[in-house]
Amino acid sequence: MIKIDYTNVMADMIGEINGILKEEILFFKDFVKEIQEEIKNERNKSFFFTQLPYQDTSLIKEVANKIREKFDFFVLIGIGGSSLGAEMLIQSLKGLDFNLNKKPKFFVMDNVDPEKFDTVLKQIEIEKTCFNVVSKSGSTVETIANFSIVLKLLKDKLGENWKNHFIFTTDPQKGFLRKFGKENNIQLLDIPSYVGGRFSVLTPVGLLPAAVLGIDIDDLLAGARKMDFLSSEEEKIKENPAILLSLIHYISNVRKRKTISVMMPYSERLSLFVDWYRQLWAESLGKEGFGQTPVKAIGTIDQHSQIQLYRDGIKDKIITFIQVEKSDIDYKIPEDLPEEINYLSGHSLHEILNKELLGTKTALVKSKVPNLTITLDKITSYNIGMLLYLYEYATGFSGYLYRINPFDQPAVEEGKNFTYALMGRKGYENKLKEFKKLYKEKYLLKIV
Amino acid sequence: MIKIDYTNVMADMIGEINGILKEEILFFKDFVKEIQEEIKNERNKSFFFTQLPYQDTSLIKEVANKIREKFDFFVLIGIGGSSLGAEMLIQSLKGLDFNLNKKPKFFVMDNVDPEKFDTVLKQIEIEKTCFNVVSKSGSTVETIANFSIVLKLLKDKLGENWKNHFIFTTDPQKGFLRKFGKENNIQLLDIPSYVGGRFSVLTPVGLLPAAVLGIDIDDLLAGARKMDFLSSEEEKIKENPAILLSLIHYISNVRKRKTISVMMPYSERLSLFVDWYRQLWAESLGKEGFGQTPVKAIGTIDQHSQIQLYRDGIKDKIITFIQVEKSDIDYKIPEDLPEEINYLSGHSLHEILNKELLGTKTALVKSKVPNLTITLDKITSYNIGMLLYLYEYATGFSGYLYRINPFDQPAVEEGKNFTYALMGRKGYENKLKEFKKLYKEKYLLKIV
Repeated sequence: MIKIDYTNVMADMIGEINGILKEEILFFKDFVKEIQEEIKNERNKSFFFTQLPYQDTSLIKEVANKIREKFDFFVLIGIGGSSLGAEMLIQSLKGLDFNLNKKPKFFVMDNVDPEKFDTVLKQIEIEKTCFNVVSKSGSTVETIANFSIVLKLLKDKLGENWKNHFIFTTDPQKGFLRKFGKENNIQLLDIPSYVGGRFSVLTPVGLLPAAVLGIDIDDLLAGARKMDFLSSEEEKIKENPAILLSLIHYISNVRKRKTISVMMPYSERLSLFVDWYRQLWAESLGKEGFGQTPVKAIGTIDQHSQIQLYRDGIKDKIITFIQVEKSDIDYKIPEDLPEEINYLSGHSLHEILNKELLGTKTALVKSKVPNLTITLDKITSYNIGMLLYLYEYATGFSGYLYRINPFDQPAVEEGKNFTYALMGRKGYENKLKEFKKLYKEKYLLKIV
Repeated sequence: MIKIDYTNVMADMIGEINGILKEEILFFKDFVKEIQEEIKNERNKSFFFTQLPYQDTSLIKEVANKIREKFDFFVLIGIGGSSLGAEMLIQSLKGLDFNLNKKPKFFVMDNVDPEKFDTVLKQIEIEKTCFNVVSKSGSTVETIANFSIVLKLLKDKLGENWKNHFIFTTDPQKGFLRKFGKENNIQLLDIPSYVGGRFSVLTPVGLLPAAVLGIDIDDLLAGARKMDFLSSEEEKIKENPAILLSLIHYISNVRKRKTISVMMPYSERLSLFVDWYRQLWAESLGKEGFGQTPVKAIGTIDQHSQIQLYRDGIKDKIITFIQVEKSDIDYKIPEDLPEEINYLSGHSLHEILNKELLGTKTALVKSKVPNLTITLDKITSYNIGMLLYLYEYATGFSGYLYRINPFDQPAVEEGKNFTYALMGRKGYENKLKEFKKLYKEKYLLKIV
């Protein structure tokens, strides 16, 4: 079960300057219909992620089972859309202790920070490790850098047997990984051509690691199907979760000047869900001067860090709380506490967590800060499937509201090109010239 | 060594709409002098954090040594300003692998999320664990909740001996922890009265855990002293790091509409430095409608997540990169790679990391997004001492620029009071009535 409580974004709760009028939502009625029609025509193209809940997962499960049998460690080499989805699924569905006394242990090599790379190496035995190299393009710098070092380590240790320690998840036709994988008879899994990194969690990119860790990926897809049905078919805005979510954020942004979208789960298991959302929201909608800046916060921790700002700083935020009703584990505060702290007696940690959320929400209402709450009755693969698909559809739909393309990321290329130039890559000689023209260290303060 | 390169925030690099003119900085010359005078008068009061670099650390080191001798696990029970500083020091100075094959292992119980609490319990042996309970007020809900459960666990396991497993770091006079600690003969450490949580990293709050993990806290303080000298004594704005940093952010905010301050280290060891900064900046300056929203990003990871938005979204950001010149550990990319990826051969991970930063900075300059880079030659306790003190002084100084009190957090109380009311605490009966009036679930969408 998922519940979206959007009471506290509405004008009758927080006033018209910060809050939304029912009329402001209904105003979009015809436009919504038009967009839904456009999206229907794109379900096999740019909106191909809408097909993913209906896929056959047998190959993924077969590969996952082999990995579970043969290996003690599973390392994902990938970055951004190639790693955040898998990490999010595993943390939310296997819990914070997913690596404690369990097999296979899961690690990620995403960054080119040598210390992070080293820290992962220290925790695995390479001869018992399966490396899943994930890159849509097949040539992501960080991924290939990490891969090439691992490749050498494996060759040095295992000789020809290195080939059995890799699985490549990449474009079905193009790119270096596809070619190299074919040449070397490496197990290959496809990322459908139309699906970009940040929408790829329900492809083998997210599903293989999830299945390797023992997550019920069919149940996950069942949740996504439920949400797909509601989001694409339901015409009443008030009953359509994705369109409602999209409109609330869009109206808050363009009419109420909420340029920041904070997501604040009161569940540490969902903290990586926010990192996944951050990419989805920022990279899809942050273009042509549009888009909100997604901000991560964690309850209750950030009550002690950010709530002062959220309540009394600039009124540029809309906040989404994520709440979980039932916890698998809980701890009760003992009875017979000293008088000063006796009010805690008999309550449980999870109960305090959710009461703090209630207190925080209400304090925000008093300050007229719009906030909505998405409640899961429990963290289950079905609910997470619903939740992530809700955000995918809402993001795609929002692109159409802003009239921008939610599936490209043109502004990312420039930095990559300068990096290639600095690495001495062939064909980037002119970029290097441009770099030298642009790069200056003119204003500098040095302290020794 | 620390280097602040602020070339890319200046108007001659990115234009006057987004960039700062030298004149805009110099305009503050007299005002800066006035503020510095005011601060001088406050060094023993609200700016008491400026005294901390000059303290005697012998008691802290003595207590830390005893802990190192007697215990295998050290658990900090505290939240926000009571935990972020210690976590930041330990992660940055002991590295990402600080808990691998080392003693004592360090954990934090901050949240009231029962799963997080449980995950820490699973990793320790309670009879070999020292618990450091940290709360300035002595009554922080999360801290006391976690403490009271641990107290019962220890009593059940160890009887009267439980008392030797606690160290309380709290207000020198007031509060529950002080009273309870005295009554039970528990080792107490003081947080000076004038120092609030987010400025307390150089009190026993941060220094004890750091010393327990083997960090050279005297070297840390030496770095802070160096930065204190420069920040409080140096009159030339261009030579005063804290005032320069403060003015750049203030002018960017009030004159260039940069309402978001992104901090993006290209070093995963510094990722918790950003969490510490987030609280410092948000809670100190986010009041009376002022302040910037601090945002955490990590290089290179967030190039694949946020850079699209930073370059092509709303121009509401100033970005601070943190770079480390030399890494203790590095990995070289092997030679003889296939042609498509051969441009990586011979480079190292750390080199790629820093070249990606250069590429990203330059792409941002092209989009006229202001960015500055703080470079450490190495991560050392001296440099981290300089860096954290730089931000403390800049934050305090910025409060005076905004003409707000950087040391209070009035907007945090309301949520706490509602929570107390919901917990049934005596004296909060009227708050409960107010809650019931304010809390509604009027607009709700439920999906089963």
